[in-house]
Amino acid sequence: MPLHSEIFEQPQILSNLLVQQWPNIQEIARQIRSFEIDYIFLVARGTSDNAARYAQYLLGAKNGLPIALATPSLFTLYDAPPRLKRALVIGVSQSGKSPDIVRVLAEGRAQGCPTIAITNAIDSDLNRAAAFHIDVQAGLEAAVAATKSYTAQLMVFAMLSAALNDDTAAYNTLKRVPEWIEQMLGQDDAIMQMAERYRYMNQCVVLGRGFNYSTAFEWSLKLKELTYVVAEPYSSADFQHGPIAVVDQGFPVLAVMPEGRVVADLLALVERLKAEKRAELLIISNQPQALKLAQSPIRLPDDLPEWVSPMVAIVPAQLFCYHLTRAKGYDTEAPRGLHKVTETR
Amino acid sequence: MPLHSEIFEQPQILSNLLVQQWPNIQEIARQIRSFEIDYIFLVARGTSDNAARYAQYLLGAKNGLPIALATPSLFTLYDAPPRLKRALVIGVSQSGKSPDIVRVLAEGRAQGCPTIAITNAIDSDLNRAAAFHIDVQAGLEAAVAATKSYTAQLMVFAMLSAALNDDTAAYNTLKRVPEWIEQMLGQDDAIMQMAERYRYMNQCVVLGRGFNYSTAFEWSLKLKELTYVVAEPYSSADFQHGPIAVVDQGFPVLAVMPEGRVVADLLALVERLKAEKRAELLIISNQPQALKLAQSPIRLPDDLPEWVSPMVAIVPAQLFCYHLTRAKGYDTEAPRGLHKVTETR
Repeated sequence: MPLHSEIFEQPQILSNLLVQQWPNIQEIARQIRSFEIDYIFLVARGTSDNAARYAQYLLGAKNGLPIALATPSLFTLYDAPPRLKRALVIGVSQSGKSPDIVRVLAEGRAQGCPTIAITNAIDSDLNRAAAFHIDVQAGLEAAVAATKSYTAQLMVFAMLSAALNDDTAAYNTLKRVPEWIEQMLGQDDAIMQMAERYRYMNQCVVLGRGFNYSTAFEWSLKLKELTYVVAEPYSSADFQHGPIAVVDQGFPVLAVMPEGRVVADLLALVERLKAEKRAELLIISNQPQALKLAQSPIRLPDDLPEWVSPMVAIVPAQLFCYHLTRAKGYDTEAPRGLHKVTETR
Repeated sequence: MPLHSEIFEQPQILSNLLVQQWPNIQEIARQIRSFEIDYIFLVARGTSDNAARYAQYLLGAKNGLPIALATPSLFTLYDAPPRLKRALVIGVSQSGKSPDIVRVLAEGRAQGCPTIAITNAIDSDLNRAAAFHIDVQAGLEAAVAATKSYTAQLMVFAMLSAALNDDTAAYNTLKRVPEWIEQMLGQDDAIMQMAERYRYMNQCVVLGRGFNYSTAFEWSLKLKELTYVVAEPYSSADFQHGPIAVVDQGFPVLAVMPEGRVVADLLALVERLKAEKRAELLIISNQPQALKLAQSPIRLPDDLPEWVSPMVAIVPAQLFCYHLTRAKGYDTEAPRGLHKVTETR
């Protein structure tokens, strides 16, 4: 099946990307540094928007840049684009075709902002609208549900962050990502077994925070697209400001919580959900207590740095969604009502 | 019940707020105009975050200001606050107590940004952290689920937008909001009847776009808090980039779509959901075709301008959640696992 083989292509795609796009990204970073940038204005939809969420934390934490996620309807339906003074405008789209994303980039360029298009297309409207282009080089993606183009988008943002800081050590850490992903792919059979337990799940929440807020969003999007499970993503903080009320005995809570700055916060929450609510826990982590709490634990590599973990932690989530789709008897390649390219205004 | 009576207090609270806070908000706007502002950096959680979403569209469309919604963990858990150059920093919190919100405001002030605290508290940590304070004057809110403090937060943002533009016509339009809300409260009995049909609903999606993206988020948050329905909010654009796959025959789709710039986009989507998927539609609108499509239509005032509609359209949604909670036999005043003040880091 294309979806399954595309998940397995990820180590090779990221290895190539790391080598082949590094000179281009370094050159773009060099040119961007000559502008005075107060913040980044990022526009994307769907899976690409989840990659943008990773950028929001990464470029914030590593590069000190505040990120505004754009509201495209202001540019399209309302025809009232805000003033984008001293903004770096970045558009992310697999196809580079959605008119709303193209419109925001074109407006940014017209206002004199530096603009970058990140696409999986050699030529597209978005590439042409932007001053700079980064190709994520994921190749043809046959499955409607995006997998390899997502991790490639994350890698492009990670390379851009390293290049903007001229940080060779960070770039060298990124080179280890393909081998960490290989370790996750080795758990394919175990994850297939695990998915059986969730055959009749029809709703769940997915928790993450910080760098892996993106992973919670992307995992829940794949669940909705492929398995039709109503899956809602939350940060551990937002979840406690109201939505936690939905959890009752046996309610499935999925969590992504690698070791790092936010793991203690998530651990306190899942411990509470287990003790007070007797929630069902499916946890992707390398933190021993977290793995012990879960009915279904998925183990991440021990030496995985938190800031690169979203590229690795999404892989078992992709495999889980693939196997759950098969367990439920749905079509893994052509989800109902979806097309590969979605054009919105 | 406090929740029901607090919903009914809203016209009076907004009337008082419009008169009593107008001089303060005009004075803050006058002082803010003396700063060079490139964008607004907004921080909030839960219901207050939904008010921030309204501000994102309103201050974007009416004031030309880009809005970045903050990621507080960068300031707290990661201890890596981004550079907030030429940002106006605004924190919204009912209690003014959550440490993460306070931390972001304090950092903004330390970096030399103008800062505004919007709270329902005469004195709080957040008020003290900020240079300026706007009291939403909603009074004691006894129910855990926020209603009147939410519409008061929306009104404060609407007044701030009018004051920043020195727009008296906009301010005069705002004065009509209490009477439009009264019209919605008059539908209380009809909404109680309508809620019966949804007694066994356990999941749904809530659609809105533009100004009412906020309403979709707030309606779905109230559903989760009060009725434990797993309700996920979407813009009509984001929904088509994947999540639409969850909709099958009879799946409940709730939509907020008053006449205005985005209604055609939403109408095309709900028509498709009805024709192709045979979805169940509960629609809050004043657009005749939209109301005709819905199994459960809720009619908004005909002369309601789109930009103020979020303050009016949320009211029948609040009533619907209240009555559905009663139909399901749950506690309207003390949802399981929630407290009035949530403190997160």
